[in-house]
Amino acid sequence: MAGTVTIPGSSVPSTPLLKDELDIVIPTIRNLDFLEMWRPFFQPYHLIIVQDGDPSKVINVPEGFDYELYNRNDINRILGPKASCISFKDSACRCFGYMVSKKKYVFTIDDDCFVAKDPSGKDINALQQHIENLLSPSTPFFFNTLYDPYREGADFVRGYPFSLREGAPTAVSHGLWLNIPDYDAPTQMVKPRERNSRYVDAVLTIPKGTLFPMCGMNLAFDRQLIGPAMYFGLMGDGQPIGRYDDMWAGWCVKVICDHLSLGVKTGLPYLWHSKASNPFVNLKKEYKGIFWQEDIIPFFQSATLSKECDTVQKCYISLSEQVREKLGKIDPYFVKLADAMVTWIEAWDELNPSAAAAADAENGKAVAK
Amino acid sequence: MAGTVTIPGSSVPSTPLLKDELDIVIPTIRNLDFLEMWRPFFQPYHLIIVQDGDPSKVINVPEGFDYELYNRNDINRILGPKASCISFKDSACRCFGYMVSKKKYVFTIDDDCFVAKDPSGKDINALQQHIENLLSPSTPFFFNTLYDPYREGADFVRGYPFSLREGAPTAVSHGLWLNIPDYDAPTQMVKPRERNSRYVDAVLTIPKGTLFPMCGMNLAFDRQLIGPAMYFGLMGDGQPIGRYDDMWAGWCVKVICDHLSLGVKTGLPYLWHSKASNPFVNLKKEYKGIFWQEDIIPFFQSATLSKECDTVQKCYISLSEQVREKLGKIDPYFVKLADAMVTWIEAWDELNPSAAAAADAENGKAVAK
Repeated sequence: MAGTVTIPGSSVPSTPLLKDELDIVIPTIRNLDFLEMWRPFFQPYHLIIVQDGDPSKVINVPEGFDYELYNRNDINRILGPKASCISFKDSACRCFGYMVSKKKYVFTIDDDCFVAKDPSGKDINALQQHIENLLSPSTPFFFNTLYDPYREGADFVRGYPFSLREGAPTAVSHGLWLNIPDYDAPTQMVKPRERNSRYVDAVLTIPKGTLFPMCGMNLAFDRQLIGPAMYFGLMGDGQPIGRYDDMWAGWCVKVICDHLSLGVKTGLPYLWHSKASNPFVNLKKEYKGIFWQEDIIPFFQSATLSKECDTVQKCYISLSEQVREKLGKIDPYFVKLADAMVTWIEAWDELNPSAAAAADAENGKAVAK
Repeated sequence: MAGTVTIPGSSVPSTPLLKDELDIVIPTIRNLDFLEMWRPFFQPYHLIIVQDGDPSKVINVPEGFDYELYNRNDINRILGPKASCISFKDSACRCFGYMVSKKKYVFTIDDDCFVAKDPSGKDINALQQHIENLLSPSTPFFFNTLYDPYREGADFVRGYPFSLREGAPTAVSHGLWLNIPDYDAPTQMVKPRERNSRYVDAVLTIPKGTLFPMCGMNLAFDRQLIGPAMYFGLMGDGQPIGRYDDMWAGWCVKVICDHLSLGVKTGLPYLWHSKASNPFVNLKKEYKGIFWQEDIIPFFQSATLSKECDTVQKCYISLSEQVREKLGKIDPYFVKLADAMVTWIEAWDELNPSAAAAADAENGKAVAK
């Protein structure tokens, strides 16, 4: 059987971690040759491919992978009028894959990302590191100076309150990129030759109350804990903005994780980001976002959720109301986005009828771990 | 001249960074042979040695170092009745050195700490890294996923607000330790053989609103920006607690830095911590702290400072009042500590008569940089 390894001195076969509990979501407009390099790591898992752009184009998937593929016609057929909340001609369309997944965990990756090597020259199994991040607790309430205290060879340092050492369930694992860093268009233009070659051997929890720029290139999360907040917004075709899909999701996700006492980790694993996107095209997509984020970030920094918001869905609907009321003043786009946030939750609940109940049960399990 | 290097192709001699603007503060009860290993890095700087314990004991300082040494008799003579705020028989006495320094920057190090090597095998110049940390801004208001954005080869990632890219002045640089990690007594007992061998090549700003366990073993700070808050409390002889001196300073410092929009960095540089202290002795010193920190940390997490607190001194006096009122209920020790906090500020201002004015001026300069 693919991926089965017999541990020396043991008769128990070991299968890849979470093999039947994780989907890999890939948005694409082209053939998925990049999967060849990931074959040893991804082949045991199920792929959900979200085809962006022209639905009549045939996307080649290398042989041997287990996958389902959705193009725009499929999205329209499955969601009907609610398909309006799924972006077109923008990698934001990937969040449709999060919605149709039936698994507890999702890993999403861009198709221009390859296997990176650690400083010893060994191929990095990014997926395995994400899974380890998700399966171990986070420490959002107090900073540990030796980083992830649950990692082999590390622990909580002197002065770390003992009552907080159980940690919090981890909802999100945000991985990084060697080679081409994830810069905005102005920075790309100013530093066209900058490459990230620094391998920082750390995973850390982003503290409660702190926002961060979440990149969707190399991201894993627990669908049951946070899935309904992983909406990548309205971007691309017909929208005044692009390249803020993952940022939008990150701001919403972090505010909700903080409210529900869930953890968000960043750091390892790295992957190899092969090519920079065109900075001129990016600037066109980004420029409104560059202005708007100056207001959006203070908005999310001061957003509050009431005690009644005890599920991700309720939190998200509450955020959508605040977006409409407060960000709607900046531009009518945010009223449309607030509507789409509600539509997204309706569509999520339609496709995941028992998700709320399951999330509650799982939440309890994670806390008790 | 010691430490003078001529840069090839240049006639300008380069002297060590901040040679005349930084003091190295070392608390000790023994001969300072450990300085031999640090000679290439420390010799150009001035040392302030705070001798703990028996003042009649003679401390040998290796030849060639420029130093001043204070024993308990000196402290009593200089501070008179206010000497009561300086701990005895505890490394907390080091903060006397912060008070008598006349420099803008202080680096403090324990005498069981040696030069560590980076992964390439090169000796780490810890002091130089601290200085680089202090001279470049911090980013306390938003998290940068590629860590220190001011470092060579790094920058702010996509989604980082442009209005925040100027950063905040850095008040504190907290370094780490290879070999013996800074664990509390229970963790030392449970993991007697654990060694830290992970070199994490990162410096990061601890976000605003997040507390951290500040260790005094390998620490640098800007005296003019935060000096009066670097009080290491009442520990050791005659006190019910030990090994919380640096923690106490760290909690106060972080709350005040957050209020005054100053940055606190942690990460590089590493030094080599040579020997673990006795966990049984440590447990005796720590056990009240282990209980108390469960209340102290929520206290500091919710402590607020009013707009009128626009200097470190005013912030510190306000904190002392809150300590008296709220922590005084836990144990009379905290009333004594609150008194000592006030005495410390009085003594600081006596020895640094123009410090407040200078701090204001420097603060303006740092912001304008």
